Amino acid sequence: MELTRLLAAHPAVEVVGVGSSRWSGSTVRERLGLSGPVGELSYAATPARGAAEAVLLATPPEASAELAPAWLEAGAKVVDLSHAFRADPEWVYGLTEHRRAALDGASRVANPGCYPTATQLALIPLIEAGLLAEGPIVVDAKSGATGAGRKSADHLLYNELADNHYPYRVGTHQHVPEIERGLGREVVFTPHLLPCRRGLLISAVVPVRPGVGAGDLEACLRARYAGEPFVQVVAPDPAVGIGAVVGTPLCRIAVGPTVKAGLARVFASEDNLLKGAASQAVQNLNRILGLEETTGLL
Amino acid sequence: MELTRLLAAHPAVEVVGVGSSRWSGSTVRERLGLSGPVGELSYAATPARGAAEAVLLATPPEASAELAPAWLEAGAKVVDLSHAFRADPEWVYGLTEHRRAALDGASRVANPGCYPTATQLALIPLIEAGLLAEGPIVVDAKSGATGAGRKSADHLLYNELADNHYPYRVGTHQHVPEIERGLGREVVFTPHLLPCRRGLLISAVVPVRPGVGAGDLEACLRARYAGEPFVQVVAPDPAVGIGAVVGTPLCRIAVGPTVKAGLARVFASEDNLLKGAASQAVQNLNRILGLEETTGLL
Amino acid sequence: MELTRLLAAHPAVEVVGVGSSRWSGSTVRERLGLSGPVGELSYAATPARGAAEAVLLATPPEASAELAPAWLEAGAKVVDLSHAFRADPEWVYGLTEHRRAALDGASRVANPGCYPTATQLALIPLIEAGLLAEGPIVVDAKSGATGAGRKSADHLLYNELADNHYPYRVGTHQHVPEIERGLGREVVFTPHLLPCRRGLLISAVVPVRPGVGAGDLEACLRARYAGEPFVQVVAPDPAVGIGAVVGTPLCRIAVGPTVKAGLARVFASEDNLLKGAASQAVQNLNRILGLEETTGLL
Amino acid sequence: MELTRLLAAHPAVEVVGVGSSRWSGSTVRERLGLSGPVGELSYAATPARGAAEAVLLATPPEASAELAPAWLEAGAKVVDLSHAFRADPEWVYGLTEHRRAALDGASRVANPGCYPTATQLALIPLIEAGLLAEGPIVVDAKSGATGAGRKSADHLLYNELADNHYPYRVGTHQHVPEIERGLGREVVFTPHLLPCRRGLLISAVVPVRPGVGAGDLEACLRARYAGEPFVQVVAPDPAVGIGAVVGTPLCRIAVGPTVKAGLARVFASEDNLLKGAASQAVQNLNRILGLEETTGLL
Repeated sequence: MELTRLLAAHPAVEVVGVGSSRWSGSTVRERLGLSGPVGELSYAATPARGAAEAVLLATPPEASAELAPAWLEAGAKVVDLSHAFRADPEWVYGLTEHRRAALDGASRVANPGCYPTATQLALIPLIEAGLLAEGPIVVDAKSGATGAGRKSADHLLYNELADNHYPYRVGTHQHVPEIERGLGREVVFTPHLLPCRRGLLISAVVPVRPGVGAGDLEACLRARYAGEPFVQVVAPDPAVGIGAVVGTPLCRIAVGPTVKAGLARVFASEDNLLKGAASQAVQNLNRILGLEETTGLL
Repeated sequence: MELTRLLAAHPAVEVVGVGSSRWSGSTVRERLGLSGPVGELSYAATPARGAAEAVLLATPPEASAELAPAWLEAGAKVVDLSHAFRADPEWVYGLTEHRRAALDGASRVANPGCYPTATQLALIPLIEAGLLAEGPIVVDAKSGATGAGRKSADHLLYNELADNHYPYRVGTHQHVPEIERGLGREVVFTPHLLPCRRGLLISAVVPVRPGVGAGDLEACLRARYAGEPFVQVVAPDPAVGIGAVVGTPLCRIAVGPTVKAGLARVFASEDNLLKGAASQAVQNLNRILGLEETTGLL
Repeated sequence: MELTRLLAAHPAVEVVGVGSSRWSGSTVRERLGLSGPVGELSYAATPARGAAEAVLLATPPEASAELAPAWLEAGAKVVDLSHAFRADPEWVYGLTEHRRAALDGASRVANPGCYPTATQLALIPLIEAGLLAEGPIVVDAKSGATGAGRKSADHLLYNELADNHYPYRVGTHQHVPEIERGLGREVVFTPHLLPCRRGLLISAVVPVRPGVGAGDLEACLRARYAGEPFVQVVAPDPAVGIGAVVGTPLCRIAVGPTVKAGLARVFASEDNLLKGAASQAVQNLNRILGLEETTGLL
Repeated sequence: MELTRLLAAHPAVEVVGVGSSRWSGSTVRERLGLSGPVGELSYAATPARGAAEAVLLATPPEASAELAPAWLEAGAKVVDLSHAFRADPEWVYGLTEHRRAALDGASRVANPGCYPTATQLALIPLIEAGLLAEGPIVVDAKSGATGAGRKSADHLLYNELADNHYPYRVGTHQHVPEIERGLGREVVFTPHLLPCRRGLLISAVVPVRPGVGAGDLEACLRARYAGEPFVQVVAPDPAVGIGAVVGTPLCRIAVGPTVKAGLARVFASEDNLLKGAASQAVQNLNRILGLEETTGLL
């Protein structure tokens, strides 16, 4: 839904078809309330291949595994938002700010997961700069209910989730291998559900090398992301709250002011449906099509 | 407010006076909607001393520091809910389930803070049983907006906090010394604000001794709290969610199912206004008055 | 769930059995977190009859229609919370504050619906006092999501209801005949769903006789409910908000300050699960058992 | 804030200055998180006049009354979002879908209030078509907390408004004269606050002429708004919920399925900050600048 909204307003993209098995037969206008030409498109269970220069797959990994080869064979470039191809060496892992060289001209992009996007954007620069000591990284992660998709389940009922907050999939979340692959570290990752719809925040506790202060971490991140349109380094307060990023294509990062027992805190927030999915997919789409990366997102 | 509601319904307590500088002159009925004799009491800026066998102070620490000695001198027993006396050796630190011997017959009780109650209930048994390895303990804590009191502040406006979530007082929260005193460990504590009114959850990551599994931690906690009316060991899922404890005098504790990199996860939830404040105060009041500890709370 | 909580704390009632087809086999402690003897009771699909002096049925109307006669035959008094018997002349319609004479000594009580309770408490005194003119009454009603029960449905998912508000069952709500029967008037009733869990507010627009002012309506209501422990007349502002009644056995009523075009506004709020269901059932239970009406509710 | 976001993304508008007395000195990027050239603009307490072809005033009415003449004298066209000029015959009342002829080429536009926009869009076609009988119109209106502006006030605290719902400014709301002017009818208008941030819903009860059915009302509205990009006629269910319009430039309208006692129900929802303010202002700006009305909004 978010992808369709972004692409409908994208000045350099023409949406030529929309696919959905569930909504087959109804129009984008009926489902999303969109006016204009995209609103008049009807969802097809199996959109005709061939017409499209690029396709974005927001499908379960099993569906992506079937659909992606067919679209590639039909000559389309593919950005897949599932985790089907994130560990596949023939696909570019689309953590945009860290993979631009590989993205330019690519035809297969595996868009990162929502938690992995925030976690890696926050921690990769610190690891690459050699500021972190050995040892596991602790990530306490919190996401709104859309992180669990649109499926129907008793624990996702309003009366069960409103005014509630609890951990889920402790020790078994599917994003852990993706994060550990990206960081090259063991990660003790604990996701929690928030009583809101959108947005996620990760609160990481990382071991720092002797002599490294919180200011060094923040300076490293500021230097790395200076000039980046969609990554902002802010204070560890409401500025890094999910309320500041929901509805935007931003990831915001903050560093706690102290190091204690050799441990520092790094936070990152994003809209799980945008920077954690759809808007990062558009960044990647823009790059593989040779467009300005920010087109349709500013 | 919660204390007054609990005591109004307490079968062995007669409320003889209520004090409030802000609400001076209005009745409990007007402010809290309570019927019955307590509803007819009027708040006094300075309630008359002497009549009361016991007094509960839900005042800022500066006010408690002035009021408590005066009430003690007037012959009343005092349960203070501020942090004024929590480190004072002449007061009993009222973490009820761990201080019963000291509480019985005491006349001065310093009621624990909300985060310290949940954190200590979850971790003290594991430390006492020798299951944890050396090293700092990481506590990611989340609280609803009542954790910040009733004061007016821009960041506590509905439009700022709804659908939001962010860290606050990182590295400077006033509960850290209290928790470290109770656990005898360094704690890397990071509080966050939740978009709900009541309830808190702490998610602790603790180093375990070699060979100790998650099952050992859970067994230890189950044994320690078997038969406890207000502490329950549950699964690390919605059962430990704040929705399951808000409005109740319970603390619920859960252990994550895995140990990774020598680290285990322990969760604890409670209603910050009840087990984290008012209902624990009533447990303590019951004990110092020689009543059954659960009176007025079941 | 609310009934069980209330009765577990009721000083003059012993809960001897709990029934539930869905929770059969689990304990009240597991489902509701209740400590004490009631917590140890196990839900039975078909609780044994005979032991109980009274039974409260919080079942669908079809189930109540079967269960009530069986319990009555077994010698129990019955308070039924469904709409099965609300129009049945052999049952007392349990709008407590208006049916005390009929309730005392009764053995069959049909507990009113949630919207009908608030609407009738607000409007019956005005009709009986002859303050209203002829003509239809317009009731705009809003309820939290528990008004729709615990059932699973897509529109009750968190992501669908959070931050949302819309009308439902327009022109077909099952409470309309009950309200019209109680008021003896045509009612244009429009229910809406609120993005919260508990509580309801009705906003009625009523035609007043010439010369009748808003102050007359308020004076009538204040006189009628003076001394009532569970009905309070307040101002048409946050005092009549659902936040002021949720978690309490109260119904609060307010009158708008002006009459315009011959129309006045009357508001009423209550916790749909308490005064709109469980706490009113306990009022009624107390009366048919010859107990003080407020027992277990103050 | 919403205006700035819309105009920053508007393909035919260059934002040349931003004014704010409160944020004077900080940049749009700091306050709104916007990247790109608009993000680099700094708020000025008094932006320099002369450079701008048009100015949009989202200021209190007193400020608008001072600023508008100055900007007009400096040669700029003005769209004012306050109620300063809504009754002024020298200004065009910018209810876009009903004032296009007057808007084209105008230099002064008074943008309608949020409640008046939804109410008039829903009811003006029915009145113009002669479908309504004489008599007052009852409007029960509900708005999220942004309807009350960004000001700090105790009743707008999270803890006061969350899970709450109540009437406010009953009989005194400032939008009533604007609505009555637009409809030419007496309106009994009762606003309520919803526990969410954005969006409003009005539920109107209107007297219909004998023989007029609900289908006639819906047919009238569908005919009137066929082809309109920003007004949609839908079903009286979640389709007209505020969740379906928040974040969009839409107003959605629905008709209840029945007429009872000569009364029908008409609902309308919109995002109070968009169709009720900023996006309607952009529609109006587009028209007075001779641009396609939908530019920057699809």
